[in-house]
Amino acid sequence: MRLGVTQGDAGGVGPEIVVRALAEDMSPDHEILVYGDLEVLSRAAQAFEVKRPMQAYQGRFRPGVINVVDHGCLSGSDVRPGEVSGRAGAAALRYFDSAINDAQKGDIDAIVTLPICKEACQINAPGFQGHTDYLAQKCGVSNYTLMLASPTMIATHVSVHVSLQEAIRRVTRQRILDLVRLTAPVVERLRGRARLAVAGLNPHAGENGLFGDEEQTRIIPAVEAAREEGFDVSGPFPPDTVFMLARRGDYDAVICMYHDQGHIPMKLMAFEAGVNVTLGLPLVRTSVDHGTAFDIAWKGVASLENFHSACDLALTLSSPGMPE
Amino acid sequence: MRLGVTQGDAGGVGPEIVVRALAEDMSPDHEILVYGDLEVLSRAAQAFEVKRPMQAYQGRFRPGVINVVDHGCLSGSDVRPGEVSGRAGAAALRYFDSAINDAQKGDIDAIVTLPICKEACQINAPGFQGHTDYLAQKCGVSNYTLMLASPTMIATHVSVHVSLQEAIRRVTRQRILDLVRLTAPVVERLRGRARLAVAGLNPHAGENGLFGDEEQTRIIPAVEAAREEGFDVSGPFPPDTVFMLARRGDYDAVICMYHDQGHIPMKLMAFEAGVNVTLGLPLVRTSVDHGTAFDIAWKGVASLENFHSACDLALTLSSPGMPE
Repeated sequence: MRLGVTQGDAGGVGPEIVVRALAEDMSPDHEILVYGDLEVLSRAAQAFEVKRPMQAYQGRFRPGVINVVDHGCLSGSDVRPGEVSGRAGAAALRYFDSAINDAQKGDIDAIVTLPICKEACQINAPGFQGHTDYLAQKCGVSNYTLMLASPTMIATHVSVHVSLQEAIRRVTRQRILDLVRLTAPVVERLRGRARLAVAGLNPHAGENGLFGDEEQTRIIPAVEAAREEGFDVSGPFPPDTVFMLARRGDYDAVICMYHDQGHIPMKLMAFEAGVNVTLGLPLVRTSVDHGTAFDIAWKGVASLENFHSACDLALTLSSPGMPE
Repeated sequence: MRLGVTQGDAGGVGPEIVVRALAEDMSPDHEILVYGDLEVLSRAAQAFEVKRPMQAYQGRFRPGVINVVDHGCLSGSDVRPGEVSGRAGAAALRYFDSAINDAQKGDIDAIVTLPICKEACQINAPGFQGHTDYLAQKCGVSNYTLMLASPTMIATHVSVHVSLQEAIRRVTRQRILDLVRLTAPVVERLRGRARLAVAGLNPHAGENGLFGDEEQTRIIPAVEAAREEGFDVSGPFPPDTVFMLARRGDYDAVICMYHDQGHIPMKLMAFEAGVNVTLGLPLVRTSVDHGTAFDIAWKGVASLENFHSACDLALTLSSPGMPE
């Protein structure tokens, strides 16, 4: 198994996380290729006293060293910790492009992404909406979803990076049904079964139409259609209790109607352990569930735990037997 | 100090909670008057082996017994555990009416409500929207809010029991400013200070207008106006991290843009300890943060903890020195 890890924005916490993590943990069971800039990563290794040697990967993986697919975009002195930089943004997209390319060719089994700065990427790629949408577009996929997964909780989302107003519009019978189809096989793989709970959109799931009718007109019909297809789906449940039901073990995953409905509880319950996964792609991609953290970047204090979780999940999802 | 406790729907968990709680806990520091039906409460006392005697209160409070303001609406045999009953709903509103009346006269210092069944109340009171709105209407108040409070977390809400679509419309500069004015003095009273965090409406608080403009056009202007009035207010923060900031102690309360934004984290973090308070009224009213729980009603298993928390908070809020 071989993971491709993109270093993310050079001025964020990505470089230090990957070199510090690889200094500590070099499992013989899998190979990690880092997509980034050798000079940037070397500077991080020096700054945080990472003793493990580093090499520019040129087709031959060397165990025991940090193997870097070097893009030669940025030098060590180009690094501007904590700053929005168009050059760093453009470089981050190049690392990602080449990892996607290698994954599509089968040279790597999964991609793990470290954080980019959306604003920095947009300087050279106007309209850039984040890793997930970019990747889906590259793969020609329109039916995909963001899954947040921790050892104790899984959530998928009807929509993520859109306004709440637009999020309401995207709650449709078809989208929820698609989401169930995307979610169930992955949850089954991770948990051995897939008892899915669908959240309502409105408070108290609308209280029988008293506060909004989206449950009646869109969500309930989707739940019924999914059941007819044989999925183990229940709901819609009141959004403020559905995660308690899942936490106590009644369900294996929650289908969420909008970004914060899933992100608020996931972050509270599993901040360090929550990993981001894109479902619906022809390749496996996981991501840490935090941003560039410019305020603490290049200080050597960023936690490695979430990155380890993202790598572990990428390995699980790309191991043989995983459903497409 | 004297609390008025309404027993709530006779078929729900209210009667058993109040008689079991008063069997155990009779503080000499305060008096509790139960607004309900003596026959219903006697049946609950018998069913759950509450040995403490009960009397119909007629103007003379007797310590050591359960003092019931008896409304004579329902007999013990009228109780239908777990069923929606128009008679029980109408009775529940009568208990509440008389508690409001006594609070307005100053005969009781605060009201603690046990759960009613909204559907049952609506049979005889069409359009009934729950305790909070009913009470505000009785008091002639239009500027009020629901606060959820636990020992570690406080949240107030721009709106509660409306559709998410309507909730977005209610996010206005004026409403948020009003909410800060309502929230700050109560938080200051409970915590000794009031560092308020305002949540955004959209994911990532809109990411500078990328996902919705309500932050720029309505929320930021409200935060600025509140600061000019001298309030310690920050934000808007991304909804999925603001509760983590509050939990780690950076803020004393979170101003939430809609029901579930506050209820999802509060319920996850403080299910048993979270109490419901209506702010903006000329009287103090707290409530347990659970419903009639028809599925477990009259089985003697309902937890008393939330009721004790609601009584404690009512006592704190109605003790001398509390701001209006």
